[in-house]
Parts: sequence; structure tokens; C-alpha cells
Amino acid sequence: MGILYDKLIADFDKVHNTNGISGERLAKRLDALSEIGLTEENGSHRPGFSDEEKAAKKLVAEWMREAGLEVREDGAGNIFGRLAGQQDNLPAIVSGSHLDTVPNGGHFDGVVGVLSALEVAEAWKQTGYQPEKPYEVAVFTDEEGSRFNGGLHGSEAVVGKGDLNEKLKQVDQDGKTFEQVLEGIGLTVDGYAAAERDADEIEMFVEAHIEQGKRLEQQGLPCGIVTGIAGPCWMEFTFTGEAGHAGNTPMTDRRDALSAAGSFVAEVPKLPGTVSDSAVATIGKLDVHPNGVNVIPGSVTLYTDIRDIYADTRDELVDKVLKLAEQIAASHDVQVEHVEKMRTPPVPIDEQKQDLLEESFRGKNIKPYKLPSGAGHDAMIIGDKWPVAMLFTRSKDGISHNPAEWSDLNDCVQTVHVLKDYLEKVQD
Amino acid sequence: MGILYDKLIADFDKVHNTNGISGERLAKRLDALSEIGLTEENGSHRPGFSDEEKAAKKLVAEWMREAGLEVREDGAGNIFGRLAGQQDNLPAIVSGSHLDTVPNGGHFDGVVGVLSALEVAEAWKQTGYQPEKPYEVAVFTDEEGSRFNGGLHGSEAVVGKGDLNEKLKQVDQDGKTFEQVLEGIGLTVDGYAAAERDADEIEMFVEAHIEQGKRLEQQGLPCGIVTGIAGPCWMEFTFTGEAGHAGNTPMTDRRDALSAAGSFVAEVPKLPGTVSDSAVATIGKLDVHPNGVNVIPGSVTLYTDIRDIYADTRDELVDKVLKLAEQIAASHDVQVEHVEKMRTPPVPIDEQKQDLLEESFRGKNIKPYKLPSGAGHDAMIIGDKWPVAMLFTRSKDGISHNPAEWSDLNDCVQTVHVLKDYLEKVQD
Repeated sequence: MGILYDKLIADFDKVHNTNGISGERLAKRLDALSEIGLTEENGSHRPGFSDEEKAAKKLVAEWMREAGLEVREDGAGNIFGRLAGQQDNLPAIVSGSHLDTVPNGGHFDGVVGVLSALEVAEAWKQTGYQPEKPYEVAVFTDEEGSRFNGGLHGSEAVVGKGDLNEKLKQVDQDGKTFEQVLEGIGLTVDGYAAAERDADEIEMFVEAHIEQGKRLEQQGLPCGIVTGIAGPCWMEFTFTGEAGHAGNTPMTDRRDALSAAGSFVAEVPKLPGTVSDSAVATIGKLDVHPNGVNVIPGSVTLYTDIRDIYADTRDELVDKVLKLAEQIAASHDVQVEHVEKMRTPPVPIDEQKQDLLEESFRGKNIKPYKLPSGAGHDAMIIGDKWPVAMLFTRSKDGISHNPAEWSDLNDCVQTVHVLKDYLEKVQD
Repeated sequence: MGILYDKLIADFDKVHNTNGISGERLAKRLDALSEIGLTEENGSHRPGFSDEEKAAKKLVAEWMREAGLEVREDGAGNIFGRLAGQQDNLPAIVSGSHLDTVPNGGHFDGVVGVLSALEVAEAWKQTGYQPEKPYEVAVFTDEEGSRFNGGLHGSEAVVGKGDLNEKLKQVDQDGKTFEQVLEGIGLTVDGYAAAERDADEIEMFVEAHIEQGKRLEQQGLPCGIVTGIAGPCWMEFTFTGEAGHAGNTPMTDRRDALSAAGSFVAEVPKLPGTVSDSAVATIGKLDVHPNGVNVIPGSVTLYTDIRDIYADTRDELVDKVLKLAEQIAASHDVQVEHVEKMRTPPVPIDEQKQDLLEESFRGKNIKPYKLPSGAGHDAMIIGDKWPVAMLFTRSKDGISHNPAEWSDLNDCVQTVHVLKDYLEKVQD
């Protein structure tokens, strides 16, 4: 046994071992995957397209076969384990996530989603249930993007999203091109391009994932319903005033870039609540020039990260932030310029899908708490082409991308119960 | 001729060549000193205790002798050129400044003060005036402090200020100790310690210096009366919140260290005006951790530089800034800690001395404009032991410590006229 099993099983309540779902099996699999790419700090190191990610996918593929699924790897290295439906020519219901991790990341991130989808197939096998529609357990390659600047390469290949020529220009930290990286694990550029699936092959995608936040913990709930996946807009702002001597420049004669930037930083957090409950705006990076104790700052460069699950409110918030920057620059007699670095469309989740998920929660006596996803996920990409639904599993202290990442086994198993119930409901 | 002469003399109005004062001589001397340590960008490089500073002092000592002054170098490398008074046993009136510069600095900074004091002696020689009291032209070593962390070593030696053991612990950027640096230009630690002068040797010190700010330029005046030398108080503040994911943490659940620091930065500039007209407060250095675009800042470290020419208002402002930091930390649910790095006493200038200078200004038909000095000067140190007066020469665009530093020759010469008149007034 590895580092996770004993701790996972210690608090497990076997009352959850019903309908063919096994907490022990889930714990053993979480534990076995944690051994692949285990770091000295007991974290997980399985970058996208690495041998470690490949080994993790191989192990999951073996489990898929044991569960009676027909396994297929596409040209992007994505794994699909298929259970035939009673009407096998219908579009498939797909569920899964990813197995890659950030450097020295955690053991739950995408793994819980992959193993939950697989556990549903195990439960169906044990209870002799065959779904009406074909069911596929999916493992997407390189969600995290720790190899290149940007991830989601597996789900993008399935959707046919993203400019392949731009992808081919990417070089990883070892100087390897995208093509060399693909070839390193036995894939090809042609195969990657051919991984796109036709719209009529899939009916919908359901992803389970750890929350990476604290809302469920604060609510005391094992899992929750995701209302949408926020699309980030990143902007770089430069406030430019006039550097000067901190002693010899009267307060009334200053054009202090940091004083203006400080007002901006102080005011921005007041704006998201004016557009929606799910909008957020963050200034995480700020650099002062020349940054000397006794020099009035001549310029400040900062970045805003603005997100919401609705495009209209996200863009309204972006406009308000831009207007604020201009107002503050004018009132401080400094200049401001901005460059938009990224504006990714949000993926709102259909309300009917949320309502059906809510029924599954109520059926399992779990309060159907709804929350947005601020982070991107494979479902964000898949949502470009197919309807998606998503549920979150409680994440201890909201810690993520860190060896200390943790989700209780009871919470993971309850997530499987809800997922299984939902996947049965969508057969109708 | 060097780089300065032609430009200085081009706009010079010979109407100022009266009472033995020569604009041409002043221009030639500014020009000659600019050649010592001239940088590729036409700046001045004469760090404290360097061969270049020593060469500049040697040249000025020669001019002192030509002007009939008796030259003495003390153990700190300070140069005093003495003109006997009619009553030579009286305490001396001293005037001067420094010749060292910051790396790639300007050609006017302390030089104008040294050459103005010398030009008064030249004028007296030419007109046959002998002061009642002995007069000394002073050149202080290492005012700028570009060699060690902190300057004013020459004036401190004269006052007997500062802990010699602490000075001996200093190491310059080349790894040389204070002792090795002294020995490098033929000085000794014992000699340095013996440079202190008795209180009754000196009656007062008058320093002329370029303004390093824009107030005189805004007023359209060649020179002004310094009301006091501000003492800086430097404090390091650390705001500590909680780092988190920019997407997954609701606005209402954040402990954003930068949001708190931003409010602080925005509010601090409103406080100096509440304590005095001369107080200033600057946040010039601010660092965010971890400083990632999509990470809510966990901590922010920033420095406040708070100055006033009055100790009570400066300290009142410090208290207000401390209180503000605590209020903002509390309202943002973050912690704040501070460390006081420096609190130098301000040197207010006696009102009677200012009034007498005002008479000299009026006598020369120059509006007696009063302004504080936000920067430290040798007069700040000398003021610890003897009464001081100070006048500023207009500084183009307020640029200082930069090759572009410039003061018009007319303004320099008018400064000499006022200084000479004042030095004659204090004979009574």
C-alpha cells in the first residue's frame, strides 16, 4: 500500500458501500495512482505527456478492462473506456477528467473525477445494470498545462479546438517542440489532429472534480452542483506618473503612480458584487518602478484577473474595471494604459442539467448546493461542442495543486453515488 | 574647457558681476570640477573616499590658497580653508558643502555650495573686506553615502556623531572595511576619531545647495530660504492575508493582502496635510507575494518614508500612519506588522536666522521664498551641535542625482550674492 490508503480508509463509513459502489476499491485506486510520480514531499509529479502520466493512464486502462469496458486511446493520448448501451447506436454519455498533475501537485485533483466515472461502471457491472445509451469513461491528456504555457490539450483535440499551427510552435522547458513531446510518448501530430470526435458521437459530458475552494467545506457538504465554469479575462495595466525625491516633492505636486494604483487595487474588489454573485476580480501581480524606499514611484504595472460564469456579466465587469482605471488615473493626474492578455468564454451550465443533478442530490439526502467553478476544467473545453454538467467534491481547506490537497473518502464516495444516480437519470 | 563652461556662460548676465563676485570664475570652477570623475553619459562619478573625490578636494584646496585661505585637512578628509577674522579668537562662521557625488550623478549638487562659499572669500579678497570673525570654507567628505549604506561621514566626524564601532563594521561593495577605505586615501581610524571639533570653535554653519525639487522653479525664483531639514522615518510594513485561487475564492471570502495594502497606499497621501504644510509621506517600495496573476496575494511588504522639518509633526504623522495601517488591516481581516528602520531627528532652522536671511534676500531684490528641505544635508548633521542656516539654488526640472542636473549660472551667482550679504550680516 502507498501513502494514501490507511489515511483514506481510517474515517471511511461503510454505510456508503451500497448499490455496487466500493469505498475500499476507490481508496486502493487513489492510493495506487499516488505511487506514480510520487515526489519527495509526498506530492504528485505527472506533467502532461510525461511517462508518469502515461503510466497512470495505462493503469486506469487496465482497471477499465477489468470493469468490462472497451478501451481505446486516441491520437492525443486520451483514453476512452466504453460500456455498450442497450441502444448502442445512440450518442454516448461521457464522464471523466484527467490524471496529469502540476509539479509536486496533489493526489485528488482530476483523479477523483476519473475514478468516480470508473466506479459508476464498476457498480453497474456488479448490479447487472446496462445503460440505455453507451457510456464512456474518459481520461483527458495534459489538462494542467504544466509542460507548455497552457493545458487542456487532450480535451481540445477531442473538440477540435485551438490552432494546431500555434500548438506546434510551443516549446517545453527542455526545449522540446510539441511534435517531439507527442513522439516521446508514441503519438504523432497527424494522430493528434485526427482525435477530433464528431458532434453526434456524444450526447453530453459530466465531470466530477475536487472543488479547489472552501465553499463546500463552509457549507458542511460532501459535494455540490457546478453552475458554470468561469472564463478569465486577464489585463495588464500600466500606471505612469513621475518619479521624484520622496523628501523634496510636496504632496500637492506629486504624480505618484503607486498612489493611483493603490486606489485602483482598493476599489476593484468592490465591483464584482455589482454585476453578479459569482463574479470575481483579482489583482495578484503588481510591480513598482523604480521600487526604492525614498523614490516616488514613476510607474506601476499590475494584472487583473476577472472571471464570471456568464459572458455578459464578466464583460460588464471588465468594462467597469477599465472605466475605474481611467477615472483613477485622471483624478491622480497619471496616465494609464492596458493590454488585454486573454479573454476566455465562460461555460454556463444548462439549468435543466443542474435541476436534474439537484434531483440526484436530494435523492441521496445531500443538500443541493450550487457553486460556480472559478478555475478552468476539461468540461470548459468539451462545453464548446457538447452539453456538460459538473459536480465538485469537498476539498479540505480549499488546498489544491499542493501535496496537502485532500478529499475525504466519504465525500469521494458520495460524489460517486450522486454521479451514478445522475448518469442513470440521463438515460431517459 | 570641459562640458559645462560654454553652456553655463551662454545665458549669463554680467550685471551680476558686482561686489567682487565673478560669474566667469564660478563657471570655470564648476567646469573644472566636472572633469574629475566625468562619466560616459557626462555625469559625475566621485564616490565618498574615492580618488576622484580626493582629487576634487585637492583642486578646491588650491583655489582656497589662491584666495588667501589657510588650508587644513582633518582626519576625516574634510577640508577647511580659513580666513582670519579681525578678532581671530572668536568662533568661526563656516560655510560649504561636499564634492562627492552619487554614481553617474550631477555636477551641481554639493559643488554649488562649496564654490559659493569660496566665491564669497574671493569677493572679500578682491574688495579688501576682512570679516570681524574668522571665516572657514568647508568641504565635507562622503555626504552622499554611495560607498557604504549611509553617508555624511565627514560632517559626522566634525560633530563627533555616530558610533565609530558601527562605522568600522561597514563594508563597501568591493568588500573593503571602513578602515581599509580610510587607509586607501591616506587616512586612519585614529585620525578620523580626532576630527571632532570643539563646540566653541564654530559659531554657526551656512550651507548653500541645489534644491533637488521644483518649488523655486515653480515660483520663478533663483534661490530660497530653507526653513528646516526634514528627518526621515522609515518603516517596513508587512500585510499578511491568505493566498488563494483567483477563480475559486468568492469576493466575500478573501483575505487579500494587496487589497489591504492598496487601501493603505491610497489613504497615506491624505495624512501629511493634516499635520503640517511641510510633511510628506511616500510609499516608494512595495513587493507582493507570491505575485502571480491568478493568485490572491498572501502578503505584501512595503516601506513608508515619512518626513517633516518639525519632530512633533513628523512623529504625529508616523503615529497616524501606524494607526491607519492597523485600521485598514482590521477592516480587511488581515494582519499587519511593522518594523521601524530609521527615525532621524529633523533640524528646524532658527527663525531669527531665517529672518536675517530674508533681509539679505530683500536687499538683493529677491523675493524671500521659504521652503523645507526634504533631503538630508551636511547642515542636518552640523545642526546637531551648532546653529545652521541654509539656502537653496533653483534646480532645473527638479532633476537631481542625474547627469541632467542643472542650475543656471545666474541663479548660482545670485545665491553667492545672498550668501555673501548674509555672511557679512552675521559679523555684527
